[in-house]
Amino acid sequence: MTQKAIQDAYPDQLSYCYGCGRLNEHGHQIKSYWESDEMVCHFTPKPYHTAIPGYVYGGLIASLIDCHSTGSAAAALAKMKGLNLDIEPAPRFVTASLKVDYLRPTPLGPTLELRAKATEITERKVIVQTDLLANGDVCAKGVVVAVLMPENLVKDP
Amino acid sequence: MTQKAIQDAYPDQLSYCYGCGRLNEHGHQIKSYWESDEMVCHFTPKPYHTAIPGYVYGGLIASLIDCHSTGSAAAALAKMKGLNLDIEPAPRFVTASLKVDYLRPTPLGPTLELRAKATEITERKVIVQTDLLANGDVCAKGVVVAVLMPENLVKDP
Repeated sequence: MTQKAIQDAYPDQLSYCYGCGRLNEHGHQIKSYWESDEMVCHFTPKPYHTAIPGYVYGGLIASLIDCHSTGSAAAALAKMKGLNLDIEPAPRFVTASLKVDYLRPTPLGPTLELRAKATEITERKVIVQTDLLANGDVCAKGVVVAVLMPENLVKDP
Repeated sequence: MTQKAIQDAYPDQLSYCYGCGRLNEHGHQIKSYWESDEMVCHFTPKPYHTAIPGYVYGGLIASLIDCHSTGSAAAALAKMKGLNLDIEPAPRFVTASLKVDYLRPTPLGPTLELRAKATEITERKVIVQTDLLANGDVCAKGVVVAVLMPENLVKDP
């Protein structure tokens, strides 16, 4: 059976995020999947996602790390709780803090790979460490403190 | 005399950044100006820059803080060195690290204001603290370690 991306298990009204919402037609629509004990996402920047010519815009890197990490937080909590995401919605996390260390310029062109691990998991808070790689080299490292979304934030889209 | 935005003083070949490059027609093209001892930028997100409906996408917030902070680093160093940016190019910084604390959800709709101060300035490294406000409320706080761009990174666009 094909694995469902964590973002495809978000409830519809929480699927409009510019980074990861499957219902945001303008956005990046990233998809994150389990590979062993890591959550993995692949994304190919557009030619205009430039920093200085030849390299990927740091804001995009931060955005990808942000959304992949909150997705990974959701997947980690779902796994801990034994949720069946084929029939139950995934929990939805928001970002309390984001830290990105840019280790080297990220070349623009290759598909980027993000690999995330949850290093601390509780019912309401998950800490996620995410590496972003290009051509197999780690170009940026991120740490996200993700907190379960307060229910009172939900509005109709 | 009208003040030139720091981004309009970047050399042409370093003006393709998706966040702040005046020559990137797909990008945000943010503009940052001195107001007293702070660098200030205003930006109105598009309706599709959504996180959960009604709120601004955190990746955009990180992107704005990133580019406004590196711009503020350039402006701070230019001021320290007494550069005349009407006739000399601005220095160009890249991001070594970015930290964003999301204090509260940022409402989608109002023009956002970013206010930055350089808290440490040397020839090659500037630390910048940036607040992002909506409707006068600080919604996110950022800290960027900006380093002078290595000359060997420059390629033709």
